[in-house]
Formats: sequence, structure tokens, C-alpha cells
Amino acid sequence: MLSVPHDARKARIGVVGATGAVGRVTLELLRERGYRNVRVFASARSAGKELAGMTVEEATPQALAAGDLDLCLFSVETAASRELVPHAVRGGAVCVDKSSVFRLQPGVPLVVPEVNGVRAAEHSGIVANPNCCAIPLVLALKPLHDAAGLRRVRVSTYQSVSGAGAQAMEQLRAQPPEENDLRMDWSFDGVEFDEEVKLREEARKILELPELAVSATCVRVPVLVGHAEAVWLQTEEPLSPEQATALLGDAPGIRLEQFPTPGAAAGGDTVLVGRIRRDVSDENGLVLFIVGDNLRKGAALNAIQIAELVLAEQRVAA
Amino acid sequence: MLSVPHDARKARIGVVGATGAVGRVTLELLRERGYRNVRVFASARSAGKELAGMTVEEATPQALAAGDLDLCLFSVETAASRELVPHAVRGGAVCVDKSSVFRLQPGVPLVVPEVNGVRAAEHSGIVANPNCCAIPLVLALKPLHDAAGLRRVRVSTYQSVSGAGAQAMEQLRAQPPEENDLRMDWSFDGVEFDEEVKLREEARKILELPELAVSATCVRVPVLVGHAEAVWLQTEEPLSPEQATALLGDAPGIRLEQFPTPGAAAGGDTVLVGRIRRDVSDENGLVLFIVGDNLRKGAALNAIQIAELVLAEQRVAA
Repeated sequence: MLSVPHDARKARIGVVGATGAVGRVTLELLRERGYRNVRVFASARSAGKELAGMTVEEATPQALAAGDLDLCLFSVETAASRELVPHAVRGGAVCVDKSSVFRLQPGVPLVVPEVNGVRAAEHSGIVANPNCCAIPLVLALKPLHDAAGLRRVRVSTYQSVSGAGAQAMEQLRAQPPEENDLRMDWSFDGVEFDEEVKLREEARKILELPELAVSATCVRVPVLVGHAEAVWLQTEEPLSPEQATALLGDAPGIRLEQFPTPGAAAGGDTVLVGRIRRDVSDENGLVLFIVGDNLRKGAALNAIQIAELVLAEQRVAA
Repeated sequence: MLSVPHDARKARIGVVGATGAVGRVTLELLRERGYRNVRVFASARSAGKELAGMTVEEATPQALAAGDLDLCLFSVETAASRELVPHAVRGGAVCVDKSSVFRLQPGVPLVVPEVNGVRAAEHSGIVANPNCCAIPLVLALKPLHDAAGLRRVRVSTYQSVSGAGAQAMEQLRAQPPEENDLRMDWSFDGVEFDEEVKLREEARKILELPELAVSATCVRVPVLVGHAEAVWLQTEEPLSPEQATALLGDAPGIRLEQFPTPGAAAGGDTVLVGRIRRDVSDENGLVLFIVGDNLRKGAALNAIQIAELVLAEQRVAA
């Protein structure tokens, strides 16, 4: 946990999309971390309902632009972020947005605090929260890149259904196990899923390696929470599995585990990394298995960590 | 389906391990294909029970060595294969064995009929049936190797619980979806799972490429039937995704599908291949996604196809 000044916890925070899978975890984490000045926003359908002891407000342009919020955490559909975030910015709130709308826009920092936290301060009202698979991936890649230079990354994902939202979780809970299947429920451009393009483009932006070679295959598995990734990487300089293990063991936000699984990662704040070994198929190759809680470090927790960077910066500037 | 002479279907066939997940599918496939002279063997615990209209016999060395079987299909635990297969061979039966005991033994053919069916005739009583992930993998790799030469293969698996047996299927059926998790339930040598070693060693033997570079990460997913594999491969000569698609579309035992899933493959006899695209991270690289029914082509069907090669050969020799 970052060291956040006590009065930062008095910041007026709006959680937009509070009723969704990520929104609910955001509320839990804010409470755990001592934030008390929180309001919850959602669509008209949920407005007026009670949520975690608060009354849900409708997320209208007017409400978000009213000027009484210091910071907004958005986890809503892409179209809703595109419409609403600019209003909240206009009202003076710094927005940490989970959608893909702003992630690759020049001038919008795309931040994983342990990797490129220094970029958060460069915002003009919006900081983007990366894709749920990009976050654990760059967290593991960064120390290896700093040590030996990344040349190539291949990654296949095992993504839980909570990444597709609360409704997908309900569907998995309701279906008989005979219907458990792998799914590929992202939009397809004829060659790749948008999820695969995001992994490549976001890893490049966060790691500041605009030419990094990344090939991804994304797959949804019938697990409720926790995204896993099988990774092959090639470095410019030799890096032994023992060296990689030592680097990852010292890296912030990572815990080494022999056989990481979603069940072991879910509910926790660290990304689990294991199966660290030589890629016997190539020179300077390493293989890893990475698992993170996609609702926490893959979404809500990373957003709050970004928010804490922004709040700490505001206090310094004030 | 191979063309098998009508009288081959009169062969006296013993199915050993008939009560297991693979054994039951073996019985279904034998009936579908017109074999009528079938006997079923299992452990003492199941002996005397009725199975598919037959009485289960105890799989003892004496029963299997009695000399009244032309061919035995073994799908039992490793230790049971090691003990019993030699007795059945002594009794004059050709044994098609699903365990890993004999697969890498010199002189024992390891056969996927579409890939190296010609090797089946070289047996001395035992033909080994490969690992359930190795079978679909080599089926897809073979036509690409013949066209452009294989240099490297990286594969991550999404293996269904039926690969761990009927009991693992019952466990998945009984557990609440909250407990669905990825598992790694193979024996570990400190670096790799035996499953990963098998994939490499068996692919090398079947493809007759003893130096082929193969790096595998094996993972069990909470799906009942159907094993999937995300594959990156590099060829010696350039091979476009369009050329690879044409080759795989013409290859025996394969059906092209845009987004192959276990649900689409289960219950069928073909291996589904899709997501065929360039590996943007490397020269001469291709990416594929492969799915097969691990109980059928990954086990029972491949064994019966081997048996049909052996029976056709015996008839020619007779």
C-alpha cells in the first residue's frame, strides 16, 4: 500500500458504475483503505437503490460536472465513459477510467503504479487504468526488461468470466457443468480480438517500448475470478531462471508461487508469478505463469493506487 | 474412417479398463463401427458387473494370456499397463496401449494414423497410443512441417478434467462454480510437469524430428471434455497464414473452425483448428488454436484407428 497522507482520505470520491463487478470491489477497497467521503453513481435503472449503506445517484452529465467531486473512479461501459468522463473533468474531478476509450490517447497517462507511477502526474484530468491482463503482464515484465531488455513476448490468457461482467458471472453460476466451455467473447477484426490488440498496445505504452513484439491469444475460461497468463519472453541479454526469480521476488506487487492459480490469487492484492523456467525452444528465452485477481489488481485496486498517486500529488501541489 | 475389410470386424477384441472414461468411449466407438466380438475387462472391483450388455471380466494376467484375443485396447493406469500388457502379448494379442509406459521405448511404434500410420506395422506386439494433447498437436503440425519445415513449437494447453479420469469429472460436476479453478495436477520434476515432457518427447518421436524445439505449459481447466492448445510455431521456410489454412483444410482428421472450443469439438471425430494467423512477434511465425475431444481422437478413437491399421495388416499378411 502506498503511503497516502491522512487528509487525502477526506477526498470527495465518486465511484461511477458502482453496481458492477468492478464497482463493488472498488467500494470494498475504499472502505478497507479508510476513505469515507464516497458517493456512488450508476445508471438510471439503479438510481435510488441502497448500495453499501449509500444511496445510488444517477450518473448524469450534470451530477458529475457539479464541481463537488475531487476524484472519480469510472468502471462503466465504453460508451458511457466516452460520454461522462469529460463532464466529470469539466467539473474539476480527476478521473481514473477503466474503459479502453482513453488508454491509447496521447497525453492520457496509462498507469500501473509499480511500473510507471511517475506518469500519473502528467495527466490533464484523465488517467487511464489498463486492461485487466495488461496490468499483471507488465508488472512481471518490467523488472525483467530493466535487467536484460525485452525483445519478444508471447502470451496466452486464461481469463475468468468476471472480466465479462456481473451478468457473465451469474450465467456461469446458473449453468450445469456440462455447459462449461472456453469462450472468445471479444470483438474480432478478422485476425485478432480487440483484447489481443489491447494487450500489445497497452504493454508497449506502459513499458514505453513502442516497438515491442507481442503476440497474444486470449481465451475465457469457466472460472469466476482471476486471470492467468502463460508467457514466453525473449530478452536481449541472457537472463537465467534463477536471476528472473530473484528479480520477480523483489518486485513490488508480486508474490512468487510455485503453481499460481486463480483460486490462490482471488481476493488478494498481489500478482502471483511462478513456473519460471528456461524456454527450451530458444536462446535467451524464459517461460512464466502469471495470475492476478482481475477485479482487484486488474481493475479496482490499480485504479485506487492511481488515485492515491494523484491525491498525493495534489497535496504536494496545494 | 479407414477402409477396414468386413472380416476384420470379427476380430476378437478385449477392452481393458472398460469402466473408465476412455474405456466407455471405446465401447461406444467399437459398437458404432460394427465390432461385435468384444469382451470387457476391468479391475476385480468391477468384475461381474454388467457394462453395455456385457459382463465385466477381471483383467488378470491369466485371462489376458489365454490366447483367445486378437487385439487388446488398454486404457488403464500406468502400473496396470506395465504389468498386464506383456501377458496379453504373450497370449498372442496385439496391444494398443494408452498409458505412457511403452510410448518412448525403442521398437514400440507411437502412432497417430494420419501422421505416421505406416509405423504401426513395425510393432512387436505393442503399439503405443500417444498423449491426449500430443495427438491433436502433431495432427496439425505434420502438414505444416511437410510444407515448410518445423523449427520451434510453443504450446500452452487448456485441458479438460476428463483427461484426469472419471472421478475428476464427478468432482467437477459436484462442486459449486465458486470452486472452479485452474489446476496443475501432473507430476513435477522441479522444472516441468511430466505432461509437458511427454508433449515434447512424443511430438519428436511421432514427427520423427528428434531435435524439435518444443516448450509447453500445461494447465487443467474446469471443462468436462475437450482439450485446447494455443500454439506458436516457427518454420524454416516462410509459410503464410493463407497457405497454412489451405494445408490444414486439406489435412485428414482436421476441420477448420474460426473459433474452436471444447464444446464444438466434444463428441466429434475431427480435431478443430482455427485462429490461424501470423505470429507478429517473429519471422516465419504462425499462431494456431487447436481443440480435440480428448476421450475420442485424444484416446479411444486414435486407439481404434491404430487397431484398424493393425487388423488390415494382419489380413494382408494372412
